[in-house]
Amino acid sequence: MQRAAVLVRRGCCPRAAGTPAVLPSMNPQVRAVEYAVRGPIVLKAGEIELELQRGIKKPFTEVIRANIGDAQAMGQQPITFLRQVMALCTYPNLLDSPSFPEDAKKRARRILQACGGNSLGSYSASQGVNCIREDVAAYITRRDGGVPADPDNIYLTTGASDGISTILKILVSGGGKSRTGVMIPIPQYPLYSAVISELDAIQVNYYLDEENCWALNVNELRRAIQEAKDHCDPKVLCIINPGNPTGQVQSRKCIEDVIHFAWEEKLFLLADEVYQDNVYSPDCRFHSFKKVLYEMGPEYSSNVELASFHSTSKGYMGECGYRGGYMEVINLHPEIKGQLVKLLSVRLCPPVSGQAAMDIVVNPPAPGEESFEQFHREKESVLGNLATKAKLTEDLFNEVPGIHCNPLQGAMYAFPRIFIPTKAVEAAQAHKMAPDMFYCMKLLEETGICVVPGSGFGQREGTYHFRMTILPPVEKLKTVLQKVKDFHIKFLEKYA
Amino acid sequence: MQRAAVLVRRGCCPRAAGTPAVLPSMNPQVRAVEYAVRGPIVLKAGEIELELQRGIKKPFTEVIRANIGDAQAMGQQPITFLRQVMALCTYPNLLDSPSFPEDAKKRARRILQACGGNSLGSYSASQGVNCIREDVAAYITRRDGGVPADPDNIYLTTGASDGISTILKILVSGGGKSRTGVMIPIPQYPLYSAVISELDAIQVNYYLDEENCWALNVNELRRAIQEAKDHCDPKVLCIINPGNPTGQVQSRKCIEDVIHFAWEEKLFLLADEVYQDNVYSPDCRFHSFKKVLYEMGPEYSSNVELASFHSTSKGYMGECGYRGGYMEVINLHPEIKGQLVKLLSVRLCPPVSGQAAMDIVVNPPAPGEESFEQFHREKESVLGNLATKAKLTEDLFNEVPGIHCNPLQGAMYAFPRIFIPTKAVEAAQAHKMAPDMFYCMKLLEETGICVVPGSGFGQREGTYHFRMTILPPVEKLKTVLQKVKDFHIKFLEKYA
Ligand SMILES: Cc1ncc(COP(=O)(O)O)c(C=O)c1O
Ligand SMILES: Cc1ncc(COP(=O)(O)O)c(C=O)c1O
Repeated sequence: MQRAAVLVRRGCCPRAAGTPAVLPSMNPQVRAVEYAVRGPIVLKAGEIELELQRGIKKPFTEVIRANIGDAQAMGQQPITFLRQVMALCTYPNLLDSPSFPEDAKKRARRILQACGGNSLGSYSASQGVNCIREDVAAYITRRDGGVPADPDNIYLTTGASDGISTILKILVSGGGKSRTGVMIPIPQYPLYSAVISELDAIQVNYYLDEENCWALNVNELRRAIQEAKDHCDPKVLCIINPGNPTGQVQSRKCIEDVIHFAWEEKLFLLADEVYQDNVYSPDCRFHSFKKVLYEMGPEYSSNVELASFHSTSKGYMGECGYRGGYMEVINLHPEIKGQLVKLLSVRLCPPVSGQAAMDIVVNPPAPGEESFEQFHREKESVLGNLATKAKLTEDLFNEVPGIHCNPLQGAMYAFPRIFIPTKAVEAAQAHKMAPDMFYCMKLLEETGICVVPGSGFGQREGTYHFRMTILPPVEKLKTVLQKVKDFHIKFLEKYA
Repeated sequence: MQRAAVLVRRGCCPRAAGTPAVLPSMNPQVRAVEYAVRGPIVLKAGEIELELQRGIKKPFTEVIRANIGDAQAMGQQPITFLRQVMALCTYPNLLDSPSFPEDAKKRARRILQACGGNSLGSYSASQGVNCIREDVAAYITRRDGGVPADPDNIYLTTGASDGISTILKILVSGGGKSRTGVMIPIPQYPLYSAVISELDAIQVNYYLDEENCWALNVNELRRAIQEAKDHCDPKVLCIINPGNPTGQVQSRKCIEDVIHFAWEEKLFLLADEVYQDNVYSPDCRFHSFKKVLYEMGPEYSSNVELASFHSTSKGYMGECGYRGGYMEVINLHPEIKGQLVKLLSVRLCPPVSGQAAMDIVVNPPAPGEESFEQFHREKESVLGNLATKAKLTEDLFNEVPGIHCNPLQGAMYAFPRIFIPTKAVEAAQAHKMAPDMFYCMKLLEETGICVVPGSGFGQREGTYHFRMTILPPVEKLKTVLQKVKDFHIKFLEKYA
């Protein structure tokens, strides 16, 4: 009997033992996954960087990676206090050093005492270090004006990515018509579509309202779920607030409407709140789903299943590399809770250094503490800069003919709509590219600026966008925006 | 229309909007997952610890967690050099401090230069930091006596757990009779069975030969695959060497036989080599699958698909909490390689601090460098102690009537076979427990010693075992062994 190759099958003839493989037979769900933030455009950017290094002449001298929300890669300095505590935890000999402030030492001692063998090198409980979960709960309670949080509902994660995919893994089930539907915003952060593919669930799109500053409209949720019920079992509703890539900040009213809708439709709510510290518009405020849920009364707060996510990667600290994060899960059935802990235990635990970083984010220096002033100054400087850059970006894009940009109320991205002339659309088709991919490739090749095409996040048919981070330092960002402007005008002329 | 609840369905009557949930309808594959190393016995241990804290009297004063391979939790001190480099990377101000050795600073600078923004706080490439992958490749080449390793084939991971589950995710595909079969040793490390459940693949057991020091016999592989072909498509063969929980170290001859078998049967080989530094028997040596594959000639080395795994968690460093690890994947089809990188990119990157820890493991101080002597002393002390404890444990267990223990050639566990009298088996059945779970629960309740029943790893029908780590310090380990001995003798008497 001829046996299948491992990952790949020959197209033509029986394959001898050990013959190298040709046609793929790998997991089709993995094959279906797409992830634009690190997709072809980013590979191209890498190639161009290598060419520049090899001395090949380009119309620019460096690639500017505005494709990913990675603040420190763009030169943002780490928060001193955070790194001091981390260094103390890493190498406890430093606890005797006079160069470290006492409040940092106090935090480090507290974290270490809660670790096995007093070391970041031990596995923690799968749910995370106890005292850090307690600090997270205290943070949430503070943030939400006293709405209680239970450490037992807190799960530390390997970045928010890990929390989101773990919860989805638990929620998705069934084949055939009862396949699980997962509602996600369009545009979305592509982790969602990728995990939905991996799990063989059904992606149910609801569109954010571009004409209305990317607001979420509950009528659109109703439309989407009604259509979806024909072919799947919608069980989960994902919300990203503040939005990525869209930068909108949801109003309290909108959140109430969404919660009521989830309650009506018995949907499990996933609230991705990794940008909770990134709100810039003076008329916007961050409202957590948890808080609004509680304020809506016990009918909601004791029934609606909600998981909300936070991360060390965004905010003012931008500690992406530590892969710290947490999720708070409420109204989860105790048996499912047990299943969740079991699932987490298979991979042993999230990185303990990332857990420690999360601890410092939720338990920063308080007024009166030795490090407070410096911490506060550093934090406000990052957030103040981001607010300036958000406004700058909106204003500059809106000066350009054929570009329209909604206000960047929060998060760290602009997602402007771009007009792509018919001739350019045809040229893109000739290159077998989505029109906005074509646009972004040209932008990259001509200016060195790397942004992600809107098609990587999803957008209404016939509209085109790109996502650009606002993380470069102010002066650099101004140059970037000017270059995009010049490029765009030339592009319009060329394909007029 | 009545809609299903999110995770749970009411048994009886139509459920009103938002009503709390009762019966579970979650992902059945997640439900099927089992993970004994952190299972019921460990929950019980936690309860007992709380009781002790509350002053409840027990026949012992502390719980000894010999259930998990977590060296630092058992008091092992971190390797100084490793933590020095990590502290320097974490808080680069320390690069100016005279208290850190120059070779540590050199390593830290090199790592930081390869990180975005020169910071551990940036996301790395999804495959891992370039220069760390180069160091891993150089390490493998050295380890394997010159057999070349390509940095492009190295993927840094979030512990070995992450690498193993990612590769399996790519390899598993298909439903019905073409469901993917994954061959695993019995006894196994339960990550394997758990991931196989999650992915809805078919677990194909091959039994290690307890009578022959837990050796792997290729005839047993043949038996297992023949049986499996009736109901699935066996595509993957997992090997754990040195073995967990069994502690055997495979001979070169055995590895050759396995590779030949994989070649014949076109199986993708997974070589879990996280214990490659943990070999104690003077007549055993670690041989990597990669090296043997190359030495068997080009027919094998250019055809057999192999992924091998390493980790910062074991060896002499025991840095479990950092979640560092790597995999080397060879002969992977370029298209599948692209798929793998895409899949990894969805979760952005492994923790950069864990990557840095991996770097130090593969690039430790060399003779002549300032830190070499201390590093060497610390490393040899840990490994020497483990060798002593391996022998001690084997000898002591074999003194006990009704316990038989194979030599602990490597890794960090004993997996003795225990005789459980018929009356005890009946008592276990009355408690709806596996007999060895019953035994381990009693051991825990009477002595405070927490070990994992053999049923958590798999064992031949009708045989019973438990797994105990040899990580407690020597004197403590002696006490533990004596207590197990006393317990066992009493147990035999009680159920005679
Ligand atoms: C909306 C959103 N959710 C989740 C994540 C995942 O971040 P991390 O895994 O680094 O916490 C990101 C990262 O950009 C994001 O933008
Ligand atoms: C055989 C084996 N493989 C893999 C692992 C996973 O270790 P980690 O994810 O900490 O690298 C372990 C942990 O005990 C193990 O024993």
